[in-house]
Amino acid sequence: MNLKALIFGHPMKTRDSETTKLGLWQGLSILSPDALSSVTYGTEAILVVLATAGVGALWYSLPISGLIALLLVFLIMSYRQIVAAYPNGGGAYVIGRDTLGNVPGLLAGAALLVDYTLTVSVSVTAGVAALVSAFPSMTTYTVIICVLIVLLLTIINLRGVRESAQLFAGPVYLFILMIFMMVAVGLFVPVAHAPTLPAYLAPTIPSTVTLLLVLRAFSSGSSALTGVEAISNGVPLFKSPGTRRARMALLLLGLFLGTMFVGTSVIAYRFHIVPNGNVTVLQQLAAHIFGKGLYFYLLSFVTVGILSIAANTSFAGFPQLASIMARDQWMPRMFVARGDRLVYQNGIIVLGTISALLIIIFRGNTESLIPLYAIGVYMSFTIAMVSLVKKRLLDKDTLHGRNTTVFIGAFGAFLTATVVVVAVITKFTEGAWIVVIAIPGLMFAFYRVRAHYISVADQLRLASLDVKPLVSALTVIVPVASINRMTIATMSYALSMSEQVIAVSVAFNSDQEARIRYRWRQWNPSPHIRLVVLTSQYRSVLRPLLHFVTHFSELTDNRHHLVVLIPELVVPKSWQNILHNHMGISLQARLVFHKNIVVAMVPYRLKSETREK
Amino acid sequence: MNLKALIFGHPMKTRDSETTKLGLWQGLSILSPDALSSVTYGTEAILVVLATAGVGALWYSLPISGLIALLLVFLIMSYRQIVAAYPNGGGAYVIGRDTLGNVPGLLAGAALLVDYTLTVSVSVTAGVAALVSAFPSMTTYTVIICVLIVLLLTIINLRGVRESAQLFAGPVYLFILMIFMMVAVGLFVPVAHAPTLPAYLAPTIPSTVTLLLVLRAFSSGSSALTGVEAISNGVPLFKSPGTRRARMALLLLGLFLGTMFVGTSVIAYRFHIVPNGNVTVLQQLAAHIFGKGLYFYLLSFVTVGILSIAANTSFAGFPQLASIMARDQWMPRMFVARGDRLVYQNGIIVLGTISALLIIIFRGNTESLIPLYAIGVYMSFTIAMVSLVKKRLLDKDTLHGRNTTVFIGAFGAFLTATVVVVAVITKFTEGAWIVVIAIPGLMFAFYRVRAHYISVADQLRLASLDVKPLVSALTVIVPVASINRMTIATMSYALSMSEQVIAVSVAFNSDQEARIRYRWRQWNPSPHIRLVVLTSQYRSVLRPLLHFVTHFSELTDNRHHLVVLIPELVVPKSWQNILHNHMGISLQARLVFHKNIVVAMVPYRLKSETREK
Repeated sequence: MNLKALIFGHPMKTRDSETTKLGLWQGLSILSPDALSSVTYGTEAILVVLATAGVGALWYSLPISGLIALLLVFLIMSYRQIVAAYPNGGGAYVIGRDTLGNVPGLLAGAALLVDYTLTVSVSVTAGVAALVSAFPSMTTYTVIICVLIVLLLTIINLRGVRESAQLFAGPVYLFILMIFMMVAVGLFVPVAHAPTLPAYLAPTIPSTVTLLLVLRAFSSGSSALTGVEAISNGVPLFKSPGTRRARMALLLLGLFLGTMFVGTSVIAYRFHIVPNGNVTVLQQLAAHIFGKGLYFYLLSFVTVGILSIAANTSFAGFPQLASIMARDQWMPRMFVARGDRLVYQNGIIVLGTISALLIIIFRGNTESLIPLYAIGVYMSFTIAMVSLVKKRLLDKDTLHGRNTTVFIGAFGAFLTATVVVVAVITKFTEGAWIVVIAIPGLMFAFYRVRAHYISVADQLRLASLDVKPLVSALTVIVPVASINRMTIATMSYALSMSEQVIAVSVAFNSDQEARIRYRWRQWNPSPHIRLVVLTSQYRSVLRPLLHFVTHFSELTDNRHHLVVLIPELVVPKSWQNILHNHMGISLQARLVFHKNIVVAMVPYRLKSETREK
Repeated sequence: MNLKALIFGHPMKTRDSETTKLGLWQGLSILSPDALSSVTYGTEAILVVLATAGVGALWYSLPISGLIALLLVFLIMSYRQIVAAYPNGGGAYVIGRDTLGNVPGLLAGAALLVDYTLTVSVSVTAGVAALVSAFPSMTTYTVIICVLIVLLLTIINLRGVRESAQLFAGPVYLFILMIFMMVAVGLFVPVAHAPTLPAYLAPTIPSTVTLLLVLRAFSSGSSALTGVEAISNGVPLFKSPGTRRARMALLLLGLFLGTMFVGTSVIAYRFHIVPNGNVTVLQQLAAHIFGKGLYFYLLSFVTVGILSIAANTSFAGFPQLASIMARDQWMPRMFVARGDRLVYQNGIIVLGTISALLIIIFRGNTESLIPLYAIGVYMSFTIAMVSLVKKRLLDKDTLHGRNTTVFIGAFGAFLTATVVVVAVITKFTEGAWIVVIAIPGLMFAFYRVRAHYISVADQLRLASLDVKPLVSALTVIVPVASINRMTIATMSYALSMSEQVIAVSVAFNSDQEARIRYRWRQWNPSPHIRLVVLTSQYRSVLRPLLHFVTHFSELTDNRHHLVVLIPELVVPKSWQNILHNHMGISLQARLVFHKNIVVAMVPYRLKSETREK
């Protein structure tokens, strides 16, 4: 109990819920890293695609980044409205469900749940891969280190969301600060060391640039916006007034992410950065602007940090969304229960377990999962924006800003849908087909779960409160091996329950049967106990007893209650269990859940032989 | 059930016991292979030790083999008397227990149980090693093949001892026939191709031959007699009259083994065989006498067979001995129970499991276990012979043949004790130290087991049959989540048991508490049910319930009976279990075996949602 408190913290009272919630900056530090960490690879993703068409094509990174930044503005504006409309969180799932219906809502929900799980696996392995490349001797332990980090994140989040905010706020804001610094200095410092490639100087359209290439670059770069939805799912994590804080957090996230992303793209162009497999674009920029000094190494370090912390955003988002979907009965009820620390512990544990399993199954090579990831998020973006458009169109009351919202939503949805289509097509063989199977599979499961809950509720519902429990005839069956103190203890229970007790004994031959009957007559315990001796030609005690009890229950009508009371020795030391046959446990295991039979063991606790002396 | 019958055979009635027993030749084919298989390595073991002193020392194999043959005669004579005195089997353990006391008896028992287990591991791996050397591509599967053979032997023996006799009699008698043939031909065929080593022609004593060397050669060669004791343990396997059949089997075993062993030694000397690591002595002899033809290859094949079948002797001996020791309460009671096929199935399963584990742990290299093996058997030989001497000396009635028995026993015991001492000293570092730990360890365990059984019997024993079970006050506690059909079903059971029923509900706040009380008052099920609403500030249902029940049981006196009836949903499909919290199962798991509390689940079976339509 003390160990548990040490690891997970002391249990918290329900009325202390508010104290576990987050302020604006704390909430931002939990819910933003997934999005912010995209800065470490967003610009690079665009440049890598463009570079295939030659260095001259890199110029296109500027308009593409601009378009992505515009999409970010649309997303932030849309989600701010969604948060205002749904203060309990749930984002795309809730608005999709309410405006478009269950199928689109569940599609968004399934996509987001899959995405949160993948985020944990991918972020942790990306962070560890960076760490391991610095210490090559640790390569063999990659999977173990990844799993340990997932375990650590699980434990921290089980302690509570505040604890993880306290731990992770530092690196998050340090990362923001450092990128801002780099962008600011990079915009004004003279470009001394930059290579003066002729292609860079003549921004013409190379013939190699096709529409498909631009679309692919846009689609790749748009991975920079994954994670923007997290705040909309996590509104209840904020202190009251949660909606206002969440909307403010979204605004700040948009400002930070937009500035960092666009800034990086601009200075990457200014310094004529060409992506290469060895050094990231961010590292190249840092080396150009600040030299290979303290800043360079600190940035590498903080990058690893922000990638790992990105996983933490999932630990906030997944349990929140799962709890909302479970309240709608699409998911198992256990996701609704809040644990000792007021968190949705089952969601956290399930997320940790599945993502650790993914890491183990893919042996730490989760790169193949990355394509899956943007698809899920952009599906949810599309559903969220379409829903918002429909909601606004139906909403007769508030005309103010309606047209803007509709335009933003429609255009945004068009852009996000483009990303989904391009990603599914271009990355289908790389793993995107998994999404096409996993998400409908999950949706099918949601429907099955809800069908079960509805069926259970129907079957349990009382027609009226006039139905009362009835007293019925009750027969107690007690298996008896010999007449001893344990038998007496069990019989005392049986007689206290009912005046119809049957003692059942098993004999292997007629001599033994006669002996049992003789001993019983000598004892003559009570007029309410009848002795039945079964004979077994097959030396089994269990089977004759099982037959007797099940036949007895079949012969009596449904109203007749049957209780089987099994005497069971409880030994003082666990090794001593192998010295006893545990007929009782076997019998109970076979009879439990049997129709119209209630089974119970009557424990007889033995003292330790050493204590006796 | 049909699959089980297919693998293990149909259950057999107790009165059919006699039909499962064995005739003389069947019994011999089961109980002799362990001893007979020693012929494949006995002579070689002597020659290998002698060869270290030069070829001139090989001559000593003749007197050493003669001494071992004499010891065999003594052993057969002694064990024939033991079998006559103990028709229920048990060999050295039983006679040791009865004449020398528990400690020597248990020493013999422990040594034999360890030995039977090692025999299985060593024989199977030796057989598979021979097989694999013929098909080198199978080397990587050695351990798997070994484990599969152990599994097969386990299954065959679970089917019954007759089945294994039918399977294995052929190879056993073919082996005997082939060795007899080789000895007969080898004694008379002219020695044409034998190398005429000068040392062989001058049987003088080389200075390198020391007493220790002769003792070691004797000790090594005496491994040829391991397995002779099996018949004395397995007397009950024979058809009536079992004693006569077992005595006859011992006589035949002595004749066969003696002739084969001495014959092999003599012809090995006649053909001037020098042991070498590549070809066994038997194979060298076969090549000299019959050439590298059909006989040679058939013998290699049959040798593999007899080594594997040797393991089968343990499957007959171990369960018999374990059942006898378990009847004396030194071992768990489960070893006494005979299964569906009238065999001591737990003994067979335990033997199969432990020997398979040994093979896995030693990764198929069980050669290191061989030294352990002779030590155990010779310990049991020594105890058997010393016991026989003491028994005869105490036995005033039968004077006939008494002096002979005493002489034979005393001299035999001297020889066998010599083997033990030499083996322990010369092979201590090679693994014999394990015996010095394992056997006393096992004996300690025997004493602990018996102490437990005696303590249980003392605690359960009734002072007199005048003690009767008493009717006591009985309170039934029913945890209630909401008022539904399941609640009614459980309450009906509760009211049928007692007029004091407490319904316990858990509320998370005062609103919820008020709502529960209000619904309950509306329902008003029975005047005998009292509602208790517990409040939980920590959102746990389990803990408040546990506290309530355990406090209640502490407040009431010991005579007051307490039953907790837990309503439990039983879902139609097992995957649906994850959709429910199973509070009942958790509660039962915590309360079961709790002092003075009887817990039972009242199952409420749901129908399948699909069937409903």
